[in-house]
Amino acid sequence: MGLVTANLAISLDGFTAGPGQSLEQPFGAGAEALTAWMFETDRPGREQDAHLLGVLHANTGAHIMGRHMFGPGRGAWDDGWTGWWGTEPPYHAPVFVLTHHPREPLPMAGGTVFEFVTDGIGAALDRALAAAGEQDVEIAGGAATVRQYLRAGLLDELVLHLVPVTLGAGERLWDGVDAAMEPVEVIASPTVTHLRYRIARPD
Amino acid sequence: MGLVTANLAISLDGFTAGPGQSLEQPFGAGAEALTAWMFETDRPGREQDAHLLGVLHANTGAHIMGRHMFGPGRGAWDDGWTGWWGTEPPYHAPVFVLTHHPREPLPMAGGTVFEFVTDGIGAALDRALAAAGEQDVEIAGGAATVRQYLRAGLLDELVLHLVPVTLGAGERLWDGVDAAMEPVEVIASPTVTHLRYRIARPD
Repeated sequence: MGLVTANLAISLDGFTAGPGQSLEQPFGAGAEALTAWMFETDRPGREQDAHLLGVLHANTGAHIMGRHMFGPGRGAWDDGWTGWWGTEPPYHAPVFVLTHHPREPLPMAGGTVFEFVTDGIGAALDRALAAAGEQDVEIAGGAATVRQYLRAGLLDELVLHLVPVTLGAGERLWDGVDAAMEPVEVIASPTVTHLRYRIARPD
Repeated sequence: MGLVTANLAISLDGFTAGPGQSLEQPFGAGAEALTAWMFETDRPGREQDAHLLGVLHANTGAHIMGRHMFGPGRGAWDDGWTGWWGTEPPYHAPVFVLTHHPREPLPMAGGTVFEFVTDGIGAALDRALAAAGEQDVEIAGGAATVRQYLRAGLLDELVLHLVPVTLGAGERLWDGVDAAMEPVEVIASPTVTHLRYRIARPD
C-alpha cells in the first residue's frame, strides 16, 4: 500500500493562506508569494524547484480534495460544474472530492475522474487507497482538508514549501495539530526550501 | 563591518518557547525538543548538527543579549550575579547586556566581558559593532530580543533551527515582524533543519 501524502506552501510564520480568502483570491490577501515559486521554473537558479515539481507527484495514484478546491458554491455544481481545471485537469488519476452533495462520477479527458464522497474523510481515504493500489494517495488540499487528515493522524508524509516571507495573518496550518515528524529530505533552492517530513502514525 | 546575526530554535508552528517560561523552564513547558538537538552530537547521524554548531560562531566578534538571558531579577545582580555560565562563559568575546540597571563592565575568565547597556538596542548594536571590528555581531537572545532587532530592521542574517515538532502555544517569533528573506544555506540533518536566511535591510 502506498503512503498518504500532502504538500503545501507555507510562510515563515505558518500561514498557508493570507486573510480574506475568496474566489478571486483563493490564497487570500498578500499571499502571492506562496504560489509564485511554482512559476517560471525554467529560469536560471530555479533548477531545484523545477526538479521538485517534477518528482512531487511521480508516485501519486489518487487524490483527495475538499469541496472548495473543486468548486464554488453548490449552485454551480448543479449547473454542471466540472472543477477549475477545464476539460483536461492535471491529475490524470481518480480525484475524490469531499462533499455533502452526492453526484455521479465525472470522467474528464486525460484520465482524471472526479468521484464525490459524502461519508467523510476516512471513507474517502479508503476509496482513494483502493484506487491507488501500490501508489500514494495525495491530499491535494486545501489546507483545511490537509489539517483534517493531520489531526486525525492519517497522514504519512508532508512536504512543506517554506516560503521566506511573513504574512502576519491568515490561515494557520498547525492550529490544533499535535505532531512530531522526522525530516527525511530537503531540497533547497534560492527561492523556497522544500522540506519532506515523515509522520509517525498513532498505533 | 561584519553582519548582525541571530540563531534560534523554532518549532514547526513558529514557537521559540512553550508556555509558562520560568527560571526552572527557560524555554517553557513541553519545549525540551527545541534544545535537545544541541546535545549528543557525537552520535551517529548527528554529523550535520555537530558541523553546524562548530561553524555557527566561527566569525562572531561580539554578542548582545536581553537581561533575562543574563540573569534573574535585579536583586540577584546587586548581589554580584555574573550570569548563568559560571566563571568562564562560552562567549570568549564582549557581551552587551540590555538592561535598565547600570553596572561596571564585568570581565570573566576566557575573554568574555559583560558590558551593560542602558540606552537601548541601537546603542548596544553600535557598541557591539565597534567591538567586533570585521567580525559579526550575534544577537544571542532571548527570542524577544531577537524579535526587537528583527522589527527594527537591524538584522542581516537569521539562522533558524527548525525542530520538527508542534508546541501549540508559547512565544511566537514572528508576531509583529514583517520580513522578506532570502534562503542562502540549508544544513539538513535527520534531527533538525538549519536554515540560514539573509534579510534585506531597509534603505
